[in-house]
Amino acid sequence: MVPRSAALPEQPAEKISKADYEAQVDELRLELLNAQFDLRHSNFSLSILLTGIDRPAIESTYQLLHEGLDARYIDANPGLEPTAEERERPFVWRYSQMLPPNGRIGLFLDGWVKDLIGRRLLGEINQAKFDQRLREMQVFVGALVDDGHVPLRFFFDLSKSEHKKRLKKADREAERQWRVAESERRFVERYDDARKPIAALLAATNSGEVPWIVFEDGDRRERNLIIGRAIRDAILAGIERSKVPAPEPVLPAPRSNKCALEKVDLSQRISKDEYRKRLDTLQPRLRKLALTARRKGRTSILAFEGWDAAGKGGAIRRLTGCMDARDYKVVPIAAPTEEEKSHHYLWRFWKQYPRAGRMLIFDRSWYGRVLVERIEGYATTAEWMRAYDEIRNFEEMLMENGSPLCKFWLHIDPDEQLQRFQEREKTGYKKYKITDEDYRNRERWRDYEMAANEMINRTDTAAAPWHIVPANDKRSARIQVLETVCDALEAAL
Amino acid sequence: MVPRSAALPEQPAEKISKADYEAQVDELRLELLNAQFDLRHSNFSLSILLTGIDRPAIESTYQLLHEGLDARYIDANPGLEPTAEERERPFVWRYSQMLPPNGRIGLFLDGWVKDLIGRRLLGEINQAKFDQRLREMQVFVGALVDDGHVPLRFFFDLSKSEHKKRLKKADREAERQWRVAESERRFVERYDDARKPIAALLAATNSGEVPWIVFEDGDRRERNLIIGRAIRDAILAGIERSKVPAPEPVLPAPRSNKCALEKVDLSQRISKDEYRKRLDTLQPRLRKLALTARRKGRTSILAFEGWDAAGKGGAIRRLTGCMDARDYKVVPIAAPTEEEKSHHYLWRFWKQYPRAGRMLIFDRSWYGRVLVERIEGYATTAEWMRAYDEIRNFEEMLMENGSPLCKFWLHIDPDEQLQRFQEREKTGYKKYKITDEDYRNRERWRDYEMAANEMINRTDTAAAPWHIVPANDKRSARIQVLETVCDALEAAL
Repeated sequence: MVPRSAALPEQPAEKISKADYEAQVDELRLELLNAQFDLRHSNFSLSILLTGIDRPAIESTYQLLHEGLDARYIDANPGLEPTAEERERPFVWRYSQMLPPNGRIGLFLDGWVKDLIGRRLLGEINQAKFDQRLREMQVFVGALVDDGHVPLRFFFDLSKSEHKKRLKKADREAERQWRVAESERRFVERYDDARKPIAALLAATNSGEVPWIVFEDGDRRERNLIIGRAIRDAILAGIERSKVPAPEPVLPAPRSNKCALEKVDLSQRISKDEYRKRLDTLQPRLRKLALTARRKGRTSILAFEGWDAAGKGGAIRRLTGCMDARDYKVVPIAAPTEEEKSHHYLWRFWKQYPRAGRMLIFDRSWYGRVLVERIEGYATTAEWMRAYDEIRNFEEMLMENGSPLCKFWLHIDPDEQLQRFQEREKTGYKKYKITDEDYRNRERWRDYEMAANEMINRTDTAAAPWHIVPANDKRSARIQVLETVCDALEAAL
Repeated sequence: MVPRSAALPEQPAEKISKADYEAQVDELRLELLNAQFDLRHSNFSLSILLTGIDRPAIESTYQLLHEGLDARYIDANPGLEPTAEERERPFVWRYSQMLPPNGRIGLFLDGWVKDLIGRRLLGEINQAKFDQRLREMQVFVGALVDDGHVPLRFFFDLSKSEHKKRLKKADREAERQWRVAESERRFVERYDDARKPIAALLAATNSGEVPWIVFEDGDRRERNLIIGRAIRDAILAGIERSKVPAPEPVLPAPRSNKCALEKVDLSQRISKDEYRKRLDTLQPRLRKLALTARRKGRTSILAFEGWDAAGKGGAIRRLTGCMDARDYKVVPIAAPTEEEKSHHYLWRFWKQYPRAGRMLIFDRSWYGRVLVERIEGYATTAEWMRAYDEIRNFEEMLMENGSPLCKFWLHIDPDEQLQRFQEREKTGYKKYKITDEDYRNRERWRDYEMAANEMINRTDTAAAPWHIVPANDKRSARIQVLETVCDALEAAL
């Protein structure tokens, strides 16, 4: 048996004897446990995906890894079928929530593979959708790999002759029938039909960084040793890599000279009367749209960015004030928790993705990566630079099921901000206490402006454009936000 | 309007004017925001439950609190109906997962109330079940209160005449129909039928520590002020309370002289042949039982405790080794994370409760509270002392749906432990590295033994007895565990 993959240790040509195997396993187990011990104190995580059509091999390997590794530091995902609630979210969402934090191993029985192939076989998704899912997964895993995550993928295949032999044997063993769930039958019994999607899947999601290691029939002992060594080597290589600081990329020239924020006309104003009149039209309109969205199961996502004191909170309250509390969720983004820090930075935004038909509102968002984290140095240059791409991909997946996404930059000028700071200082609200940090941030206005301009240039896409809202006048800003959200919802419904 | 509750600030007899109201609201809002600010740095959390039959009042209050408080530190639970998946778990499970961590406010629209009354009205649960749910919730909230959590409960009731007036008005407003979901109709339209369960609910879950504040019809302004002040006062009182260290209780005399562990016969041994023979019977038996449990949706829970090196891991592997990976989950309990520490100590065990039909295996458990946390002083005397009661209640709720619960104490003597430590030191496994701490724990053997005896005495109940397994001989221990689990499953299925 030669696995169809490069970069594996050389294998002996002849079958391994039992005694020889046991000696090698003992040694390997020690190395694996020690590697896992070192992984616990590292800043990356490992995921191991076991899938294919050789069910007994998959399940015994799953069991073996449970026993051979230290189970206390494994997050096991035993391949349950997605629930109806899970299917309401974008395809990768479910797997994003299963990812292990740094220092741990995620063990996936079938992961996203079996369900996807099963649905293709049943015709529940067409070829185009199937291919799209594969691309999404590849992009998703690529971002994790950039972040240091190490995915290992094993596919347990069977030759046609071996498959036939197995089916016959299974028929004889009544007991085995218990174990073959409906979804597995599709996979197991429709051998010929499954060939095409399996080949497509392996081809589309195979890459130098994340190769598939494919087994076909073959000797159990040899396979176990290959898997064990691959895991050991992956951990050790990851640890070596994490010791060497990544070279800082040379700063790129701005992609264009377009300075979106300089052109904003901040002189717009509307009167109190006009404001009330338009509010009285827009709020009932939004309310009806939200109810229709709930009925139709259409999720929408809003992200608010902008200067401190630009009026994000006030604008959000004008939206939520006319909606049913069950129809929206406001997620204010503060510094990440320890748990959040030990995942990819987008993980905490994925986590919030709601059930179908709801509006999710972020008060500050994933754009913090290329704003505050960039300017204050919380993210390395390499990290925030690749974030533009990651964000575009992330947003594409957010919009996967036709969910509208509205991104707002609430814009004010430095004088207006100073005035609002001073007003806040007059109130007794502790939450509004203006700190030295707020004034320090003011001094970096130019840096933030440059970062915001670059952000807008690089992430202003046709499907998810930036809405730059002049906000020196709170009333006109709120009206503009309400109008934009109504229009986006209307277009999507 | 006089709310049916004690301990509220005096209210003016006449209606409040708009100007007067606004002045008072301004002041109250400032006080509330400042109280919330201080709460953020405190070691307790607050939950606010808004429910009843006056839907507009409930929803506008929900909205008002969202706006009046700092939404960044609120966890909003907008009263969605429980999903099918949620209903597979014990009744309180869903609410345990919504609890805010320390420093935050949980805002519950309807929480557990509407669903429970709705189901009673539809006859989906009988009176006995309804009463049981109320008791469970009372016990559950009681444990949270002991831990410092502050629950506030508001019930928005309507008089019959006001209710009639509202229904007529609602019929006229076509738009309102959108907002009345099916589940609400039950509640809203079956006014007379709902009187009895509502009265029963308010009576059964009203206590001095967690009173219901009930409004009936009445003036909106007055109501808002009462609610705002109740929240402010609850936070301030909580902060005052948390400043005063709780008096340490005087240590109680042991409830009995029964020393469960001294009587264990550690001389039991079985031969290798006998072991293999019995394993070959027990493992297929367990496997079949687990498959039946999955089919029937019968969840089971196992908890393993015992001395270091007593063989918990080995015993667990003999169980899982014969089961389908989808049918069980092993949860190894280590030190709690930051997130876990900011909740009631049982929260992290609730969190693990699986979907129907699975086996959940804890490698160490909630009993850590009365073992290591007691002995090492991680829990105060008051905390571990009340834990016996909390654990009994918790286990009762775990078993609520007929789920069997098996608790094992794997028992060895100090000599056997020393020998196993020394064997481990000879291996190269880093995970088995014996540290000074392990030897330090050995020196406290007598303390741990006393704590384990007291634990067994106080938590050995008819429904969830302790299984004390002599484990000097690993083989006989494993067989005994397998047998106990098989018997428990068989009895439950």
